[in-house]
Amino acid sequence: MGNWRKSAAGIQPRNKKAESDMEMHLNNLTKPAGSLGRLEELAVKLAGMQGIPDVSHPAVLVFAGDHGVTEEGVSLYGQELTSLMVKNFVQGGAAINVLAKEIGASVTVTDIGVKGETPGAESKKVKNGTGNIAVEAAMSLEEAEQALNAGADTAAEAIEKGAKLIIPGDMGIGNTTVSSALIAAWTGAGVNDISGNGTGVTGTQLRLKQDVIRRAVRRISCTEPLDILAELGGLEHAAMAGAMIEAAGRKTPILVDGFIASAAALAAEKLAPLSKEYFIFGHRSAEAGHGRALEMMGGEPLLDLQLRLGEGTGAAAAYPLVSMAAAVVREMAVFSDLGIDA
Amino acid sequence: MGNWRKSAAGIQPRNKKAESDMEMHLNNLTKPAGSLGRLEELAVKLAGMQGIPDVSHPAVLVFAGDHGVTEEGVSLYGQELTSLMVKNFVQGGAAINVLAKEIGASVTVTDIGVKGETPGAESKKVKNGTGNIAVEAAMSLEEAEQALNAGADTAAEAIEKGAKLIIPGDMGIGNTTVSSALIAAWTGAGVNDISGNGTGVTGTQLRLKQDVIRRAVRRISCTEPLDILAELGGLEHAAMAGAMIEAAGRKTPILVDGFIASAAALAAEKLAPLSKEYFIFGHRSAEAGHGRALEMMGGEPLLDLQLRLGEGTGAAAAYPLVSMAAAVVREMAVFSDLGIDA
Repeated sequence: MGNWRKSAAGIQPRNKKAESDMEMHLNNLTKPAGSLGRLEELAVKLAGMQGIPDVSHPAVLVFAGDHGVTEEGVSLYGQELTSLMVKNFVQGGAAINVLAKEIGASVTVTDIGVKGETPGAESKKVKNGTGNIAVEAAMSLEEAEQALNAGADTAAEAIEKGAKLIIPGDMGIGNTTVSSALIAAWTGAGVNDISGNGTGVTGTQLRLKQDVIRRAVRRISCTEPLDILAELGGLEHAAMAGAMIEAAGRKTPILVDGFIASAAALAAEKLAPLSKEYFIFGHRSAEAGHGRALEMMGGEPLLDLQLRLGEGTGAAAAYPLVSMAAAVVREMAVFSDLGIDA
Repeated sequence: MGNWRKSAAGIQPRNKKAESDMEMHLNNLTKPAGSLGRLEELAVKLAGMQGIPDVSHPAVLVFAGDHGVTEEGVSLYGQELTSLMVKNFVQGGAAINVLAKEIGASVTVTDIGVKGETPGAESKKVKNGTGNIAVEAAMSLEEAEQALNAGADTAAEAIEKGAKLIIPGDMGIGNTTVSSALIAAWTGAGVNDISGNGTGVTGTQLRLKQDVIRRAVRRISCTEPLDILAELGGLEHAAMAGAMIEAAGRKTPILVDGFIASAAALAAEKLAPLSKEYFIFGHRSAEAGHGRALEMMGGEPLLDLQLRLGEGTGAAAAYPLVSMAAAVVREMAVFSDLGIDA
């Protein structure tokens, strides 16, 4: 079983010497200095994490959970859609399955807290959905620990099977509401600035959603990261954070998806500040509030394609760029190969 | 031998019925409506071009040529680097080779006008480099026609071998100067707004480069697209434009790289306005002036990663997104598969 606290304690910062060596190597490659732009930045960052960049065998780790707050009417869809979408993931018909196939990634679907049955999914269910954060804690501290450890366990398994990069993904009707609450609590941003349309809520329903988030954030008085996560978080947020902390402890790059995953990344960083060193942000979500979370972590996503789906799709879409960055520094010729002094 | 005029005459606009059918299909897929953002836009556009989106077997077509204008001192590098880089492409050591391998693309390297020998490259050499555009025409009208037809020929060969998408790429020391001149002539933009650092020129050398572009644009008085292309263009611009026109005539998507390729795309559109219907813009170049060319064509690139290398690299980096868009609409489940009314 995973132990997120032990993993957190073992995280090392990126190796600055490896990064500066990589900067020198990049300047010897057969191209004008700096002309590969952000691919060069990525290569440097990967070198700091791994030495020789290698992001082969990417693993998409989808965590699914339900949210008691849906009883407030914050989403267009009912909780039953969570288990139906889990079935869709298991059958390979969801967007993340298609994108994972495109990038040659494995997909693991873990039920961390879906209300109801999820045949075919990996079961690490902590409970049948969280409490309604508008009026009560989402989970107990023990449940939060359990979800963090389950996520760490899932990441450890994937990495032990050979994954050199992980993509944590999410499924859970109501989880943009929960993500907004977590981001509001951690950034201090106003609720109207960090809550958006989710799967498509607008007008009166959006105002209701914002009011629910405001009630949830006002309800709590704790300041410890684990307490905040347990009060407001989703079980999938806790599991994703655990997976991120585990990967960081194993010097494995984490390609962070959009809004939901960034709320989880913020949780990981609050629980284990060095985990941030292993984050690569894949996609700027169209969801309001993602920008605030990114600012707080100093993240600049690779893509901005107006995706607002979750599941890990924005990160999967960005993966080829990370793979290209790694390939360039391993495979390109240097000027001296052409008989030119660099 | 290719015949760009015949190809241009045969270009058909995208099929609007296929596009609206695809919009309906996208709304049945197991995701919130519109949540795949620009991937959905891409799928619609591909449907308009192809019916069922299929961008398999992408072909990178690199055209290399030299530029007489380098004698003005507009580049950090001498013309001899063009043939050395062609050697690098042939040997597989350049950035475009690595990115092409990542996306499973073939690479064809065509010498359309390099000064000197280029062993191993496909030779369709029109002449040993263009004239110095600051003082004379780059090429005659006949030479421009020959380069356009050679490019059309290269695209036709790739498509007949099975390529469902082409990526025209460029190599030619001095070609940012030439691209700026073409864009200035076609957009009417001021030279300072559309000329930039190229492979790394700054300060006095940048002002010299801008002065050279200004002299070239002022020297000419013609208004016909083919005349402007012959006066200011590179041979590789003409060949790339020919390849684009040919691909458009065969309803084959063209993934347009950055600054140089966009100058060629502008040439293609001026020569054959409907060719624009088949353009997908891959990358917003860090080079000043790209924005003006894009505005003129109504293009919004998929990526903005501060690349400024050319060779087709920005388009190759964007290719996986186009492939994902095609895969999503072919492979995702629809709501009725899950027993849900959409």
